[in-house]
Amino acid sequence: MLKSGSIKRVRKLIGEQKAKGHTIGLVPTMGAFHKGHLSLIEKAAKECDFVVVSIFVNPAQFAPTEDYHIYPRDLNRDCRLAEESGTDLVFAPSAETIYPNGYSTYMEIGEIANILEGKVRPSHFRGVTTIVAKLFNIVQPDKAYFGQKDAQQLAIITKMVRELNYPIKVIPCPIVRDENGIALSSRHKYLTPPQMKKAIGIYISLKEGVKLIRSGISDFGSVRSLIIDMLNKYGLKRIDYVSFNKWDSLEPALKPDGKVLISLAVKLGNTRLIDNIIINPDTGL
Amino acid sequence: MLKSGSIKRVRKLIGEQKAKGHTIGLVPTMGAFHKGHLSLIEKAAKECDFVVVSIFVNPAQFAPTEDYHIYPRDLNRDCRLAEESGTDLVFAPSAETIYPNGYSTYMEIGEIANILEGKVRPSHFRGVTTIVAKLFNIVQPDKAYFGQKDAQQLAIITKMVRELNYPIKVIPCPIVRDENGIALSSRHKYLTPPQMKKAIGIYISLKEGVKLIRSGISDFGSVRSLIIDMLNKYGLKRIDYVSFNKWDSLEPALKPDGKVLISLAVKLGNTRLIDNIIINPDTGL
Repeated sequence: MLKSGSIKRVRKLIGEQKAKGHTIGLVPTMGAFHKGHLSLIEKAAKECDFVVVSIFVNPAQFAPTEDYHIYPRDLNRDCRLAEESGTDLVFAPSAETIYPNGYSTYMEIGEIANILEGKVRPSHFRGVTTIVAKLFNIVQPDKAYFGQKDAQQLAIITKMVRELNYPIKVIPCPIVRDENGIALSSRHKYLTPPQMKKAIGIYISLKEGVKLIRSGISDFGSVRSLIIDMLNKYGLKRIDYVSFNKWDSLEPALKPDGKVLISLAVKLGNTRLIDNIIINPDTGL
Repeated sequence: MLKSGSIKRVRKLIGEQKAKGHTIGLVPTMGAFHKGHLSLIEKAAKECDFVVVSIFVNPAQFAPTEDYHIYPRDLNRDCRLAEESGTDLVFAPSAETIYPNGYSTYMEIGEIANILEGKVRPSHFRGVTTIVAKLFNIVQPDKAYFGQKDAQQLAIITKMVRELNYPIKVIPCPIVRDENGIALSSRHKYLTPPQMKKAIGIYISLKEGVKLIRSGISDFGSVRSLIIDMLNKYGLKRIDYVSFNKWDSLEPALKPDGKVLISLAVKLGNTRLIDNIIINPDTGL
């Protein structure tokens, strides 16, 4: 496996692959790998000739009050896991390489970036879309892999790719969960065992919501209340949102009509956890 | 010469050229060609195997009060001139193709877009950089050609390409002037013969400024006053700005130190005219 922090060298290595007619897959990450990340890499390795994994804790997507400085970093471990999962090239640049002195070019995505996570984290998606646009220009992949765990991110990147005409296919990847149904997250490292026990309630509550909709309750307002009740039962009381949105425009969804994203964010200590399910009540999926 | 308004077809035609190992040159334009545009196309034809000229009057770079609806359009004439100058493919999309319903992805460039032209035209460069980013993603050129007439645009695009890591070389092209020294502009169509006569004063005043700096006057404040006096003598009294900026950061320049952009904007009737000179007092250029 190759590894570089240099944009110039990465371009050269990828150029050699393109010259051979090889397809390029990109998995953009912030490192701190769990099985969710590795499932993206494995999928990319199956579908592409040459897999590039970027590892970069992107300061632009953290607010000054957030966990940029303590976000878990272990490049050696990540590189080992990346290699085992089928990575051909790790691109791990420094912050100075990505945002040199005087840097001021960002993406502006519109209302879809101001709701849900964007409401709580106002400049988060500006940072996400900017780093992804830069990675797209550096790596020029045929396909780019994003987890559904960050569903709003997936919807926003899909919109950006479509609207800016990037010749790239965005590949959504399913959420990977632990044996208790908890969606894997690098931020679980911040949680105590009792907090992890509470976190089990997140997916159970989401599934309860899905069950209610399947049983014929078509008023999402009621479903929302019942999900919140269930979260509370698990001791999850600091709820940022429980939301129903059309997939993938993220317009508000009031009742079953096409694909619906049910998403939520809760706080446990200083840690925010998010999770979601996308359902299609019309087709029963 | 090929011609298309379809992104899909343009991608296909360019893909065929790339597969042959041909280099791609892009000349982004709003049509209404004069010799300035044609000099860009000719330069691209000399330097690249396959020249793409985009013709698109970009609504996103006009304010509602500006001349979007009356901007001169003559696609047949433009295509003829483009072909004569060495164009291989004209890309002339509709506004709906470029900005489909619900479109909301834009570039955000920072302070460099808020000064000079950006001060008078607040969302102008947001529109310019967005269409150029889209054209870069559609055409994926090796080189892109921009006239120095729009010096701030050239500086901003250069910055965007550098900061977003586009693998594209921005090629600046010198201003083309008529026999009276007036920088060619598609907006001259709006001017009466007496207004065109006044416009002669613009370049004469700029050159007077350069002469003063060369003669040893190093205080740009004084040079600015003298340029304004000279503009006034030619009946040019509605001056938006006469400005000295470091090239190409566009930071304010107070005295000779490296390359300096001397730029100005004046109004004649409802028409704004811009012109500039880039000098390097250190080297005498």
